[in-house]
Amino acid sequence: MKIAVLGTGMVGQALAGRLAGLGHDVTVGTRDIAATMARAEPDGMGNPPYPAWAQAHPAVKLATFAQAAADAELIVNATSGAISLAALEAAGSDNLAGKVLLDIANPLDFSGGFPPTLFVKDTDSLGEQIQRAFPELKVVKTLNTVNADLMVDPRQLADGDHTVFVSGDDADAKKTVTGLLESFGHRDVIDLGDITSARGTEMLLPIWLRLFGALGNPMFNLKVVR
Amino acid sequence: MKIAVLGTGMVGQALAGRLAGLGHDVTVGTRDIAATMARAEPDGMGNPPYPAWAQAHPAVKLATFAQAAADAELIVNATSGAISLAALEAAGSDNLAGKVLLDIANPLDFSGGFPPTLFVKDTDSLGEQIQRAFPELKVVKTLNTVNADLMVDPRQLADGDHTVFVSGDDADAKKTVTGLLESFGHRDVIDLGDITSARGTEMLLPIWLRLFGALGNPMFNLKVVR
Repeated sequence: MKIAVLGTGMVGQALAGRLAGLGHDVTVGTRDIAATMARAEPDGMGNPPYPAWAQAHPAVKLATFAQAAADAELIVNATSGAISLAALEAAGSDNLAGKVLLDIANPLDFSGGFPPTLFVKDTDSLGEQIQRAFPELKVVKTLNTVNADLMVDPRQLADGDHTVFVSGDDADAKKTVTGLLESFGHRDVIDLGDITSARGTEMLLPIWLRLFGALGNPMFNLKVVR
Repeated sequence: MKIAVLGTGMVGQALAGRLAGLGHDVTVGTRDIAATMARAEPDGMGNPPYPAWAQAHPAVKLATFAQAAADAELIVNATSGAISLAALEAAGSDNLAGKVLLDIANPLDFSGGFPPTLFVKDTDSLGEQIQRAFPELKVVKTLNTVNADLMVDPRQLADGDHTVFVSGDDADAKKTVTGLLESFGHRDVIDLGDITSARGTEMLLPIWLRLFGALGNPMFNLKVVR
């Protein structure tokens, strides 16, 4: 499948690398190609700068948000939540119309320090904000409840015996996304319902952050035992 | 142990019955004894009225919030979140001082219909509000992430292979509460940290409610796979 991954950070790299490894035709989208290719330092979490990552992943192309989205059949939102709407605006609603958006972004607000709060919650969600802003896009919220390594390689923890979720208004789009998740190795994908159920997964972030603190590492996930 | 269970509903009945069955000296606290004993109809969820439940549990006493709290070594807050602060106020800060509060209440707001929203979240929590209102009480938030049946009998689901959490400022109080949870059959109790971590478990309610809808029954729980 022709896939655009919007976002050049840790999550974008994880998704783009895994999708390319599975044989998809992947283009990473960025706001400013020259600025992205000029990065020489690791990010704040020690991840390599994009040019170093790109060198190790020659099959993955780099383009502007708009170019990447225009050519894609499916789009991954791997931007940080605070800039997701702006990135999709830059991609252009004509380039998004009718396509599936696999939306991973969380509405984290770091303005008050750590732990971050959520800039939208409870009565609304970032998933819903994106769906309202781009009504012809088929938004499926997913993977926002796990660390980037587990998003794309869940079998490295308990052979994948844990759960991820999908939320969205379009049944076929959720089926497409669930198929991609299964190709990554996910064994338990629960359909929570329409896009308003993204409130539930975005509001998992506070306990995720406390668990990260209590357990001392991010290689954990929730399993819905039933 | 002498234990007061504040609240006569489904959660109060589940906790009081289980604690009495384990040999504790249990008094249920209510706002108005006569009104509680006059109830003849099941509640909105089909649970028996208190007098019918009490007849089946003769070892459990009924008293006012204040009487129950005055005699207790440990207090369970099984009131609904919207009235928890008023119930504890009625119990009286002198009767609460120095004691452990096992706080199960969630800050659910049903004023907008179903699903409920949270009347406090993200930058504060009901657990913190209670701790601030009664600084000499040792608040431990726990069990608010599971159905009442699983709170007190976790082994009925996957032999207890799932997780509950404790949040609180007092390490000894968390140890006492964890011991009670283990006596119920809980096998995996994670200490999330101080009482501010109650934000995390209270904010699980939205996904809990969506899972209840998606799975069709409340007999599920989360396991932290790590």
